[in-house]
Amino acid sequence: MIVEPQFEKFDSLALDGGETLRDLTVAYESYGKLDADKRNAILILHAFSGDAHAAGIDHDGKPGWWANMIGPGKAFDTERYFVFCANVLGGCRGTTGPASTNPETGKPYGSSFPVITIGDMVRLQKMLVDRLGIRKLLAVTGGSMGGFQALQWAVDYPGMVEACIPVATTARHSAQQIAFNEVGRQAIVADPNFHGGDFYDKEPPARGLAVARMVGHITYMSDESMREKFGRRLRDKANFGFDFDIDFEVESYLRYRGSQFVGRFDANSYLYITKAMDYFDLTAGKTSLAAALEPAQSKFLVISFTSDWLYPSYQSQEIVNALRSRNHDVTYVELSSNYGHDAFLVDVGEQTEIVRSFLARCYREAVPA
Amino acid sequence: MIVEPQFEKFDSLALDGGETLRDLTVAYESYGKLDADKRNAILILHAFSGDAHAAGIDHDGKPGWWANMIGPGKAFDTERYFVFCANVLGGCRGTTGPASTNPETGKPYGSSFPVITIGDMVRLQKMLVDRLGIRKLLAVTGGSMGGFQALQWAVDYPGMVEACIPVATTARHSAQQIAFNEVGRQAIVADPNFHGGDFYDKEPPARGLAVARMVGHITYMSDESMREKFGRRLRDKANFGFDFDIDFEVESYLRYRGSQFVGRFDANSYLYITKAMDYFDLTAGKTSLAAALEPAQSKFLVISFTSDWLYPSYQSQEIVNALRSRNHDVTYVELSSNYGHDAFLVDVGEQTEIVRSFLARCYREAVPA
Repeated sequence: MIVEPQFEKFDSLALDGGETLRDLTVAYESYGKLDADKRNAILILHAFSGDAHAAGIDHDGKPGWWANMIGPGKAFDTERYFVFCANVLGGCRGTTGPASTNPETGKPYGSSFPVITIGDMVRLQKMLVDRLGIRKLLAVTGGSMGGFQALQWAVDYPGMVEACIPVATTARHSAQQIAFNEVGRQAIVADPNFHGGDFYDKEPPARGLAVARMVGHITYMSDESMREKFGRRLRDKANFGFDFDIDFEVESYLRYRGSQFVGRFDANSYLYITKAMDYFDLTAGKTSLAAALEPAQSKFLVISFTSDWLYPSYQSQEIVNALRSRNHDVTYVELSSNYGHDAFLVDVGEQTEIVRSFLARCYREAVPA
Repeated sequence: MIVEPQFEKFDSLALDGGETLRDLTVAYESYGKLDADKRNAILILHAFSGDAHAAGIDHDGKPGWWANMIGPGKAFDTERYFVFCANVLGGCRGTTGPASTNPETGKPYGSSFPVITIGDMVRLQKMLVDRLGIRKLLAVTGGSMGGFQALQWAVDYPGMVEACIPVATTARHSAQQIAFNEVGRQAIVADPNFHGGDFYDKEPPARGLAVARMVGHITYMSDESMREKFGRRLRDKANFGFDFDIDFEVESYLRYRGSQFVGRFDANSYLYITKAMDYFDLTAGKTSLAAALEPAQSKFLVISFTSDWLYPSYQSQEIVNALRSRNHDVTYVELSSNYGHDAFLVDVGEQTEIVRSFLARCYREAVPA
């Protein structure tokens, strides 16, 4: 099935930082059919470098980033559910972001784009959900930064979220997570082509962005998965080169991933979205995580992966413990996987079974036959 | 005690890569007194960004990088032992490296410096040991890359090493370790000031080097130690700035560490030394690690730290298991610490007791009263 991007326009969005964005666009994709009573809608929330293309095949033949989880008979079964995913605010894949035209100047925002938050992203998604006439989502779900948004949804719009499935995520960005993001940002800012963020009429800061992405890729894998995938294997040579060309497969992989990223991602989106991630802290202004999650009315399914050291299981367990302390309906599973943080994208066997049965229960309880 | 750097000159060094370096200098420091029979010498081997200043106070008032382990009454007791440490080949703190003058051109080597190995570093150290008239070292020891050199010493010069104490280290660089090094190298190479490595008459690639160092610092700490040290504390502000200035303490720390590193380290040394680390694999050309360690005649004390995820304990355990499989004399301790890889530098309480008694035994057995 070839999926088409869809677009909705919105007049304005008031931001947590105090500014207001005008003339916004939201790009999204949808799969499956919305029931007449609109009770079967599942909002998929993408991770840092993801986009609205979560499932199906696009016009370039590229499968969606969670195509193994979304589709007929899959975890998010498009024969039963209406599944949709929007590019986040600040992104560079159709939704308003720093590369979009600033209506006040007629030029790209660049550095004039305001700093945004996960709350802002969710508020814009809420406008899309309203536009689609959906009064209550059957589920919100996503991995990594997608999990931040899922949690924010459950807290900010408790009456609108039947089920919340945060995967491989945390309730607040840790010092180490902020640190990795900061390194990526500094790599971009250090690139002379960055020009303070106003580079859209020039060469982009491609080298800085590639380095930032290389760091990211290491954090998405595990020590073990890197050993299995690359080990110390050399790339197209029998012996060390004794120079600074590529010796190892892992070097080749990282350089390739870095350079490939440059073609599909905007360096400013890297800055703005990672900043939103770093600002994310459900407990801000609350006495505890339990207090922060108190207003939520969703059923929760929290999933983490054993080898994920970027969003380690203990961070999911903090969420689970906080929810349990206030008698929320919460199921927690820690899945065994060697894939590190990437596990939520690639290791979908058990994930599928667990999500499928959880969703079936939530639907059954929400929409009695 | 103010320590003075000492220097020794050597005519030439044949390298594993096939080239020969001429007119070499080795910078080293020493602490304590060499016995008349020269049986109390301990060679300290420094980590990637270390130098010969391992103990005491230098003329700038700066303590050595292992000053809490080396000194009167300390683990490496300078009242009993003659302790010395040399800057490695390829370094930038007195020993010949890429910033040194190439005798053939009268200009800095820059990109004409040959790629070196851990074996090359050790071969140059061996020349220093010979020059000092030491026929057998009581111990070789170091953490991280210092541990690589200690292991290489034990294998390459088995008759010269009474005791080998590799700390927080590995017998071969893993894909993940190579990957982090490669990111650092790419950050440097991406800096337009790098000029292919020939930048000594120009501005150095300071921004790339700073980014490389920032990545390094994250890997030296643990998730837990970063949470304890920084958490989500803001830097000199009560609320988020909603801009790209520093918000968090951890950002401030990384930027400071990055910029500080630029003043004391050469970007080419970064490239050459990390490459030597990545090439390090004791098992290369051998059937197993046990076979690689077979020739060693040392007593071994292997130390790792629970929270060290850059050189995880399982890598030390591989060394221990290989040694035990061939009946080498080996003691292994995994020490509890939150400090991550930095633990070998900072968490010295238990380390001190263990090293002290191990050295006393080795000395007693080697030099009967």
